[in-house]
Amino acid sequence: MPSCAGIIIGDEILSGKFADENGPELIRRARSVGADLRRLVTVGDGVAEIADEVRACANAFDVVVTSGGVGPTHDDVTMAGIAQAFGVPIVRDPMLVGLLASYALTNDDALRMADVPQGAVLHPSGPTSFPVVQVQNVWVLPGVPSLFQRKLVLVEPSLRGAPVFTRRLITTRAETEIASALRTVQDAWPTVAIGSYPRFEEGDFHVIVTLESRDEGALDAAWAALSSLASMG
Amino acid sequence: MPSCAGIIIGDEILSGKFADENGPELIRRARSVGADLRRLVTVGDGVAEIADEVRACANAFDVVVTSGGVGPTHDDVTMAGIAQAFGVPIVRDPMLVGLLASYALTNDDALRMADVPQGAVLHPSGPTSFPVVQVQNVWVLPGVPSLFQRKLVLVEPSLRGAPVFTRRLITTRAETEIASALRTVQDAWPTVAIGSYPRFEEGDFHVIVTLESRDEGALDAAWAALSSLASMG
Repeated sequence: MPSCAGIIIGDEILSGKFADENGPELIRRARSVGADLRRLVTVGDGVAEIADEVRACANAFDVVVTSGGVGPTHDDVTMAGIAQAFGVPIVRDPMLVGLLASYALTNDDALRMADVPQGAVLHPSGPTSFPVVQVQNVWVLPGVPSLFQRKLVLVEPSLRGAPVFTRRLITTRAETEIASALRTVQDAWPTVAIGSYPRFEEGDFHVIVTLESRDEGALDAAWAALSSLASMG
Repeated sequence: MPSCAGIIIGDEILSGKFADENGPELIRRARSVGADLRRLVTVGDGVAEIADEVRACANAFDVVVTSGGVGPTHDDVTMAGIAQAFGVPIVRDPMLVGLLASYALTNDDALRMADVPQGAVLHPSGPTSFPVVQVQNVWVLPGVPSLFQRKLVLVEPSLRGAPVFTRRLITTRAETEIASALRTVQDAWPTVAIGSYPRFEEGDFHVIVTLESRDEGALDAAWAALSSLASMG
């Protein structure tokens, strides 16, 4: 299954000026197409911090998706960060210069949007839209949520994996009482991931136990074993 | 000003089973007490990935807050991750053993909640509540949102810094047209952080320009300069 990581780039998220909508969107979309999202990081608008995170994620995971920092203003430094991560220069792409010119965007700031790390692949994204830039296994998406959502569709073929099946149990027994049963079942069915989540918010106390697996047979067997062992269900 | 990082620990967030409420809460609280939140990372329930992130953040920032993975079940491995990050063993704390015993929690799984990295400091958190564990500059908070919120109050004295002042401008001019003015003002007032955020969602196009600084005089001057230069406001 493709492993993946998301890097949300933007001081505006860390300072609370805007809520992050793209991280949650990536979580939803990765799950829906069968990818394993393994890491989600929000960093500020700094070239070095972007470069460090991109380098680490590109080495560790199959697919990396970045969000934000790709416009024409001084705070847009994602391309510089990615170029530094891979040790390549920034180059001005003639096709992008032409596309910008077709919108009469020709000043120095607008032309920064034609600057990409050397070796970038450009994926067409519809006749009136800017291409999506891919640098090795890193897909560079815009931070504007409506654009991020639309362009994430182009990344989906790289994210596609076998579906994950899930089951859940809810119990009013304490975690300390069911922990042993959870451990026994987890050990017996290693392909099933079991999680235990106490909740106090919704009035009375309860624990939500989740099971998930790509192997639906193992999942059902683990679910049945846990239901009987822990007297839950 | 205290710099800070948040580490949200939990497969359940990355797989979309639960929305992350604690990251946004940390963002709000850090800003409200004047700390600079510089990094927010969600990792899965793995000892190595927790250890790597804790080590990196503890070295780079004044204060680190973790969320999740501190219960009695098999998927609670945060203490092991933090111990590995600092190269110290896990030890069973007698005071915590006593506290658990006072609730008749004495089985092996319950006692795991008395295991902390060697050298941990325990902060009392009210008579009926579990103490908050601090290991060096890392504060270990529970993932249950209502508990996270309540215990974050104990971290606040370490996060407190001078307040940040903000201004914003909204314009219908394109980023490519105002980028030069933004750059000029940013260069002239380096203590003011200027961000530019195009939005297409709310019907018509507009750009939100934000200015922020701990120096309110510089902020007002930069705001005035930008308003006149960019014909915005």
